[in-house]
Amino acid sequence: MQHIFTHRLDVRFRDCDALGHVNNATYFTYLEQARYAWLHEKMDAWRASKTSMILARTECDFKAQVSHGETLEIQLRVDRIGRSSFDVEYTIVKAPDQQVVAKARSVQVMYDYVASKSIPIPTEIRRWLTALKTPKGPKA
Amino acid sequence: MQHIFTHRLDVRFRDCDALGHVNNATYFTYLEQARYAWLHEKMDAWRASKTSMILARTECDFKAQVSHGETLEIQLRVDRIGRSSFDVEYTIVKAPDQQVVAKARSVQVMYDYVASKSIPIPTEIRRWLTALKTPKGPKA
Amino acid sequence: MQHIFTHRLDVRFRDCDALGHVNNATYFTYLEQARYAWLHEKMDAWRASKTSMILARTECDFKAQVSHGETLEIQLRVDRIGRSSFDVEYTIVKAPDQQVVAKARSVQVMYDYVASKSIPIPTEIRRWLTALKTPKGPKA
Amino acid sequence: MQHIFTHRLDVRFRDCDALGHVNNATYFTYLEQARYAWLHEKMDAWRASKTSMILARTECDFKAQVSHGETLEIQLRVDRIGRSSFDVEYTIVKAPDQQVVAKARSVQVMYDYVASKSIPIPTEIRRWLTALKTPKGPKA
Repeated sequence: MQHIFTHRLDVRFRDCDALGHVNNATYFTYLEQARYAWLHEKMDAWRASKTSMILARTECDFKAQVSHGETLEIQLRVDRIGRSSFDVEYTIVKAPDQQVVAKARSVQVMYDYVASKSIPIPTEIRRWLTALKTPKGPKA
Repeated sequence: MQHIFTHRLDVRFRDCDALGHVNNATYFTYLEQARYAWLHEKMDAWRASKTSMILARTECDFKAQVSHGETLEIQLRVDRIGRSSFDVEYTIVKAPDQQVVAKARSVQVMYDYVASKSIPIPTEIRRWLTALKTPKGPKA
Repeated sequence: MQHIFTHRLDVRFRDCDALGHVNNATYFTYLEQARYAWLHEKMDAWRASKTSMILARTECDFKAQVSHGETLEIQLRVDRIGRSSFDVEYTIVKAPDQQVVAKARSVQVMYDYVASKSIPIPTEIRRWLTALKTPKGPKA
Repeated sequence: MQHIFTHRLDVRFRDCDALGHVNNATYFTYLEQARYAWLHEKMDAWRASKTSMILARTECDFKAQVSHGETLEIQLRVDRIGRSSFDVEYTIVKAPDQQVVAKARSVQVMYDYVASKSIPIPTEIRRWLTALKTPKGPKA
């Protein structure tokens, strides 16, 4: 996967559950953390657009177990860009050897809370997303 | 969805994030909680089978926001039963009016940690799952 | 302890850590949950007072381990009532046999965010708290 | 406070609650994380001693609010060393300007699970802790 952004984080003891490994729900916290770090880059455009973005869907395939004390990289790429929504693809790898531990995806929708409906992606955001869109690499 | 098991839980203040609603990762904790409550029924068969079950994949579509203080029902049905894996489908609804707040799915795989490979679903578990399998209801 | 309010909750799988028992930080989530449930009773008075309450301190003594699937009761009493702050005392017990698993305390301060300073407890809230204040029972 | 160990961590979006700041329970996760990072240094001695350490008490005074995206340092010092227990003191500061956001303490007890009772701190661990014990600095 040709990613456009990488977020690195340390697995906390509390991220793990009674089975001794990172709990499945925690992976979605990792995705969220990477997503926010990435969007932060373009914060001014988001604010200017006065657009709310809501998470419509998220999914994750778990490939390997992760333990407390390990360091992960969440790699991110923009995939599908629709009229009012776009998809982000993630690969979570162990930092030292790039072993893939999870593959994930999230769908974000632009939303107008006042009108209670989805709205088109604002022009500047769309331009930014499109520029970031990378060709899908060879299947990992 | 004709569900076979319902787990009811109260949304905690800590389940919500800075946006004031239940955080996306928390939904997966709700699914997990419902799944464990359901599997608990058949705990003896699981123990006897000495089989480990791992979560291979999970996904969730978010339909409505949920706040602290609300009570949810996680409704569960067995969907696909494969050779070594099976899918569970979930509908999360608000308890008072059955408003759907999320639709989700998880894929469980039977796994032999010693041999490091997936194994067929043990006979008694398969029989139990098959008996539980309900026809898919009209699309909600 | 003569308590004035009891909040009952189910221990979730995710409340536990890799050691297999409820994680120490989770106890503070339980206290928070009980506190909010209790304050909810008097929500109108809080709203009317337009006062912010901040948590200034919290502490917990752990007496026994708790596992996934257990049901707990968080028992609560008002202890010290000062000029601008008050203390809440908690006893967490296992629901079936009232075995004490933790003793805790939290200190709440009334705060004016605009002036950035603590303020006296509003009259109606003080009256309510004082009425609730129970004599300290024989030491458990 | 003359500290002997510092653990640095990034505040996650999920660490915050609906009030928009780091939730009170999360501070105890930060303490835990710092404590484990520190103990890791002496992991061999702990393993050799075959001693279990349990958390008997923890407490925290909250001094300032912390938001998503901030970086914290958890500074740690050994305080009281008793027969079978010892105290750790923590100061949590914002990394850039060392503003104190919380002061905390935890009490650890050496425990024999088989005999169900506390036991003396093993000699090598005691020696290590004693060497680390620093004079209490001027009150912050």
